[in-house]
Amino acid sequence: MTTIGIIGAGVAGLHLGLHLLQQDLDVTIYTNRTADQVRDGKIMNSVAHMSATIDIERELGIADWPGTDAEYSYHYHYNGWGDDRRFTGKFEEPARILDYRIYLPELMAEFERRGGLLEIRDLSVAEIEQLTEVHDLVVVSTGKGEIGALFPRREEKSPYTSPQRKLAVGFWKGVAPRDPRGVEISVAPPAGELLALPMWSFSGPVHALLFESVPGGPQEALTDRRYEEDPAAYRELTLQMLREFHPSVSERVNEAEFVLQSDARDILQGAVTPVLREDFVLLPNGRYLLALGDVHMTVDPVQAQGANSATYSAKVVADAIREDRVFDERFMRKVARRRAERLEASTDWVNTIIQLPPAPQIPHLFSEMVHNPELANRFTENFNYPIRQIDLLGTPDRVAAAVEATAPATAGASDQ
Amino acid sequence: MTTIGIIGAGVAGLHLGLHLLQQDLDVTIYTNRTADQVRDGKIMNSVAHMSATIDIERELGIADWPGTDAEYSYHYHYNGWGDDRRFTGKFEEPARILDYRIYLPELMAEFERRGGLLEIRDLSVAEIEQLTEVHDLVVVSTGKGEIGALFPRREEKSPYTSPQRKLAVGFWKGVAPRDPRGVEISVAPPAGELLALPMWSFSGPVHALLFESVPGGPQEALTDRRYEEDPAAYRELTLQMLREFHPSVSERVNEAEFVLQSDARDILQGAVTPVLREDFVLLPNGRYLLALGDVHMTVDPVQAQGANSATYSAKVVADAIREDRVFDERFMRKVARRRAERLEASTDWVNTIIQLPPAPQIPHLFSEMVHNPELANRFTENFNYPIRQIDLLGTPDRVAAAVEATAPATAGASDQ
Repeated sequence: MTTIGIIGAGVAGLHLGLHLLQQDLDVTIYTNRTADQVRDGKIMNSVAHMSATIDIERELGIADWPGTDAEYSYHYHYNGWGDDRRFTGKFEEPARILDYRIYLPELMAEFERRGGLLEIRDLSVAEIEQLTEVHDLVVVSTGKGEIGALFPRREEKSPYTSPQRKLAVGFWKGVAPRDPRGVEISVAPPAGELLALPMWSFSGPVHALLFESVPGGPQEALTDRRYEEDPAAYRELTLQMLREFHPSVSERVNEAEFVLQSDARDILQGAVTPVLREDFVLLPNGRYLLALGDVHMTVDPVQAQGANSATYSAKVVADAIREDRVFDERFMRKVARRRAERLEASTDWVNTIIQLPPAPQIPHLFSEMVHNPELANRFTENFNYPIRQIDLLGTPDRVAAAVEATAPATAGASDQ
Repeated sequence: MTTIGIIGAGVAGLHLGLHLLQQDLDVTIYTNRTADQVRDGKIMNSVAHMSATIDIERELGIADWPGTDAEYSYHYHYNGWGDDRRFTGKFEEPARILDYRIYLPELMAEFERRGGLLEIRDLSVAEIEQLTEVHDLVVVSTGKGEIGALFPRREEKSPYTSPQRKLAVGFWKGVAPRDPRGVEISVAPPAGELLALPMWSFSGPVHALLFESVPGGPQEALTDRRYEEDPAAYRELTLQMLREFHPSVSERVNEAEFVLQSDARDILQGAVTPVLREDFVLLPNGRYLLALGDVHMTVDPVQAQGANSATYSAKVVADAIREDRVFDERFMRKVARRRAERLEASTDWVNTIIQLPPAPQIPHLFSEMVHNPELANRFTENFNYPIRQIDLLGTPDRVAAAVEATAPATAGASDQ
């Protein structure tokens, strides 16, 4: 019987594991944290699952989350580049944000209930290589440092050598939801962006405030200051940044109730250098390792493409395994080719959005969307469809074409 | 309104034209032959449309051919490599072979009925370049010589610099159909192959006898001798080759009735050097030409992949145009990437089959299929699915894996 080993129990590894159990394969996931440790740990992200990802979850039988209320269908924009600043985009189907400390442990349990084997252990590179002698295929879906470095950077798709944003996200109470519910995307050049994300966590509905701060800009203190050193000062700094740069979110805050959901575990700070790595690597023993998820592609979280790309990628890998169980170079190249268009589109899109100074077409696009609901809806819906998104915004000519194709019929008349 | 120009009215160009009319685009097809000239001309091929292609035709509303009877569901094999020589493979859905002198003129008429513009003219490279100023996109789906040479050879996917088979096909009466109807595939190393294809032409049911002759081998006289110089001698040579190398077809011939359907127009001789060319080329004026069909990929006809690849490719191009009408380098690369996996699989598959001396896994595969109906059916059905076919037969290890996965349960017992 074909046996597959998966390194990592993040969303990528768990999705892949569940897909492969549907094919009645023998699957082991290796991870260094138990479900309880994940549940009791720090927040990991604040990522939305787009409806395209929820469709995959439906195939896996993991789309229903009874007792939670975490769906939304709108993006509320505050466009710091223009004079007219506010506009809204609508999804065709709702997205959903669950605290991964709820989501991942439940998937780990479900994986085991369905017959998957979950092994809790740390793995060195040498041990991973040994696993390729045990399993027909080993997929690496996690791993910083030397494990990640097994997969070489694809330089032509990795334009940055340092983070373009410094990140700080906290799960807060006391932010009024938008009605209808939605994510607020506030762009405040040159400070950076703020995403206010309605989500479900242990205490019920909270808002993740994800500050994407330009390095050296006025927002970055939220990443550099340690919350634990002075919680009250960190809270005050957060409120100050909202007031100064993000009025459309600030106006929703009830300061009397503005408080972290629980404690310092509700704060995550850091920064990522975006990178796209090679899909696979040939080991000295003649076996291959296949990369999946963050270890394959790391994107800045500002467009919520990391997890959604990872679940897509897991499905591509699973589909390839369904039709072909000869894990040679041809298999590896097939997987690489099949996921390349969408993954490259994601990474190109996000890398275009975070470019400093801004790529010229991005302020143009945002300022056009203020007056063009069709364009705003398309930009929003395209969070499901990275290929269409980079088609829309990849170059100044492409933004111009999209603007022309969606120009409101009245625009010409009102210009006269 | 977006306007598309297509050079060539073969199956690739006509399919693309019909797809684009379904998108209400302005489409012009340029060709140097009228429908009447095609109808009255020489035969062009004897290619089967696999069910995957017929599915595309159904989308285009051109799948129904009333008054014809040209479907079949079987491949009858004669395996010249083994002691046990005969086996059968079955398609899940029937394929169909129509004389292209019937098929293409009808598609040309349908294209015009639906509002397409058909321009009958010869085009030089300079004139094609001018057309890129008239149309938003120009697709080149035909063109030997200097037009074809616009698109550079992809050396890594074009292993041959000369034909590996010399070809001769004639449309004959007097060959009894198999029951149930099917294509006979007779492999007679080192002479080459014969395909006996049941098809529909002007006179009703005929058989195309397609001789694929190893250069320098005993069959090649069928390609080198001119039918017109001595029709009786050519007919006698054909019978002689059948008797000598292809007994499973020879036994079906009623010599009293064995005659060409009409005249020398029912004979086509030649040879092709397989080549995969670049998908697109940037012209000095900054516009692109996109390659489609034979001008993009030329394969030996022995596995019927030319037309089926071309119709697939036309659909990929049409789908890309439906979602993106900015015809820049990104568009060209998108089309290239989307069709690459299947087209490269087709060309790799056919190039493996015609390799001289044979790739070692091919005689192994054929000899295994004699005793393994599941494997034979898979090989047959894979004429629809080139990716699965090269998965099956791309390397000796892959054939071994397929044999193991499909080994009849009784085989082990009878070995004891």
